[in-house]
Amino acid sequence: MKIEAIDLFYVALPEIKRAADGTQDSLVVRVRTDNGLEGWGECDASPLVSMAAYVMPMSHSNVINIREALLGETLDSPEDVIRLRNKAGEYGLDVQQLDHAVAGADIALWDVLGKHLGEPVWKLIGHDASHKKLPYASVLFGDDPAETRAVADSIVERDFRAAKFGWGPMGRSSLADDIALVQAARDGLGPDAKLMVDAGVIWGDNVDEAYERAVAFADLGVTWLEEPLRTEEVGAYKALSDKVRANNVNIGIAGGEGADYFRAADDMMTNAGLDFVQIDVGRIGGITEAKRVADKAHELGIQYVNHTFKSHLSVAASIHVFAGYEEFDLTEYPAGDSALILGLTAPTGIFRDSDGLIRASDEPGLGVEVNLDAINEFQRMVKIEVDGEVLFESDKP
Amino acid sequence: MKIEAIDLFYVALPEIKRAADGTQDSLVVRVRTDNGLEGWGECDASPLVSMAAYVMPMSHSNVINIREALLGETLDSPEDVIRLRNKAGEYGLDVQQLDHAVAGADIALWDVLGKHLGEPVWKLIGHDASHKKLPYASVLFGDDPAETRAVADSIVERDFRAAKFGWGPMGRSSLADDIALVQAARDGLGPDAKLMVDAGVIWGDNVDEAYERAVAFADLGVTWLEEPLRTEEVGAYKALSDKVRANNVNIGIAGGEGADYFRAADDMMTNAGLDFVQIDVGRIGGITEAKRVADKAHELGIQYVNHTFKSHLSVAASIHVFAGYEEFDLTEYPAGDSALILGLTAPTGIFRDSDGLIRASDEPGLGVEVNLDAINEFQRMVKIEVDGEVLFESDKP
Repeated sequence: MKIEAIDLFYVALPEIKRAADGTQDSLVVRVRTDNGLEGWGECDASPLVSMAAYVMPMSHSNVINIREALLGETLDSPEDVIRLRNKAGEYGLDVQQLDHAVAGADIALWDVLGKHLGEPVWKLIGHDASHKKLPYASVLFGDDPAETRAVADSIVERDFRAAKFGWGPMGRSSLADDIALVQAARDGLGPDAKLMVDAGVIWGDNVDEAYERAVAFADLGVTWLEEPLRTEEVGAYKALSDKVRANNVNIGIAGGEGADYFRAADDMMTNAGLDFVQIDVGRIGGITEAKRVADKAHELGIQYVNHTFKSHLSVAASIHVFAGYEEFDLTEYPAGDSALILGLTAPTGIFRDSDGLIRASDEPGLGVEVNLDAINEFQRMVKIEVDGEVLFESDKP
Repeated sequence: MKIEAIDLFYVALPEIKRAADGTQDSLVVRVRTDNGLEGWGECDASPLVSMAAYVMPMSHSNVINIREALLGETLDSPEDVIRLRNKAGEYGLDVQQLDHAVAGADIALWDVLGKHLGEPVWKLIGHDASHKKLPYASVLFGDDPAETRAVADSIVERDFRAAKFGWGPMGRSSLADDIALVQAARDGLGPDAKLMVDAGVIWGDNVDEAYERAVAFADLGVTWLEEPLRTEEVGAYKALSDKVRANNVNIGIAGGEGADYFRAADDMMTNAGLDFVQIDVGRIGGITEAKRVADKAHELGIQYVNHTFKSHLSVAASIHVFAGYEEFDLTEYPAGDSALILGLTAPTGIFRDSDGLIRASDEPGLGVEVNLDAINEFQRMVKIEVDGEVLFESDKP
């Protein structure tokens, strides 16, 4: 089949709050083929900046837009998806946003190919099984311990057996305050639930501040301390993880969501001493590149975990990536109440079974459908003109 | 003083050719302050995608645009520039394009601060001298050896003592063809001129193909082989440079222009075995970040070289970065004939002295001025609307 159209939908809640909450908007990408099929993908990225990468005028032979790379191309096999992903990467070699933007198209290509061939994506990318994973509710800390406790209580009410708390006031005042936040989360979850902490790069390059928290949080049974340091501080990460290991502190160091392309993740895995590498399929350029990271993590004995803060389109794309690796048994699962994000794939989604576990679907493609009503309700209409020529104008789905 | 306005000018030649020639367009950034000063900078990046990063709607607290981060801010000292560069980085933490886009603003901030304080940028960023550098003409290979020879002849006519040939047919057919291209360049330049070769990432991850060329080009007195491999193939780079050293092949390995942020360059310097690290100040987020790379290169004993394929605004910004490091004695110098790029700063520029050398100016700021007539002549008028609201509309300068 041939790629006939690539449609871009910028969707957003009516009001965007200044919080570290990625469920307030999304860029959804639809690929349509000449045999009447369609596939869907989603970027975890600024919608406007990413849209520009699909329609920008050519600057030279290494700045050519994604539409130009993909429209009219043949798509019949997994090799075609990889070839097209690489083609878009070559056309946009000097476009930094390329990976964030092309992620949505790459996911949509895998989805539509799966529908075409009648196979789930996990099989097309080379897995021989789709194993169950334990989803952890991914939430933000409340503004204080009491609010955090209330969040934890609501997670227990929704029968989650694992949760990750992040951002909010973590790291913004004293060590004691940080411990009180994590203690509140632990008290609410009870002693048996898995608890993870996401520090949102708050300690920059300060190994000592991060290490103090690692020790304190280990005592509260925290599985991992995530992004204690800025992504680029690879040397500081290594110093931190070495110190944690040397002192037998029982906590993992996690990071990687800032990795925008394979080598950035590879650098973190190889040089930062990570125990868990967290990859956002909607940032790292899609399923094709995320799968390369999962394969390398498997090789290195590092646990691959998805980073996902968008709709079930991204939850599905994320879990297909590492479906076949039984040892990668944890999966980030958005647990917020964004009407946009919940509605985008309603009534389909990746839902928990009676054991509270989830797995990548065996249906053709990703196994979730996009709800056009939600796009209609939340769509922002974009128009981009250069010298009076309309390069892009949003259409209704 | 306070930052009062940030103006964006997308300029381009009337016709863009599909060649690896970055002198066909540019994004020029002007910062105006409340005391009537203005500073200028330039991005080496897709203009449209980068503009979007200045005006995009907020997605959440890590996707906030560059204008929002900088407008109204105080700018009185070098510490302010660094603080503002970091602020823009935090506001745009999850925007991949941030570094390419903010580069222009960062350069403009240093320029306007220099004018305000009456100091050249090299002094403000901590250098105590501005040493002379040997500029190499940076040109593309012709389509065959004869055309390449003609290019080399024209370089000699213009009195350059060093030249770098890149892209074109290099690596696209046989080893013999590649050698013939380099031989033609050497024949034209004569035996004494410095000659460098830029392979434009053509051999991907193939160490053997790159090594064969390294050996052959060393015999032709080539100073370095640049980007033989894709930027992300750090392991392959290391294998190549190890093999070159182990066999005493007399050629350096160069790379780094694809580094969009400090750690990417640091990774190349630390793990790829580079002899020369080539940094584009218009991609890596500006002078602030490029200076960090130069400092680290100095520490590691790797030669820092600028990558520059835009106007003299970028030539100036680039050379200020490493002005004080006497051992970094080579500088890339665009030698094409783009009317846009030559006109943008005319009649000012960084020109060769009677010895054929260039240095960063002692004038306040960058030491070059922007020619508004050129902007008027080449400007592309951009309009970006979301839900009928105009987020950006080009103004004449």
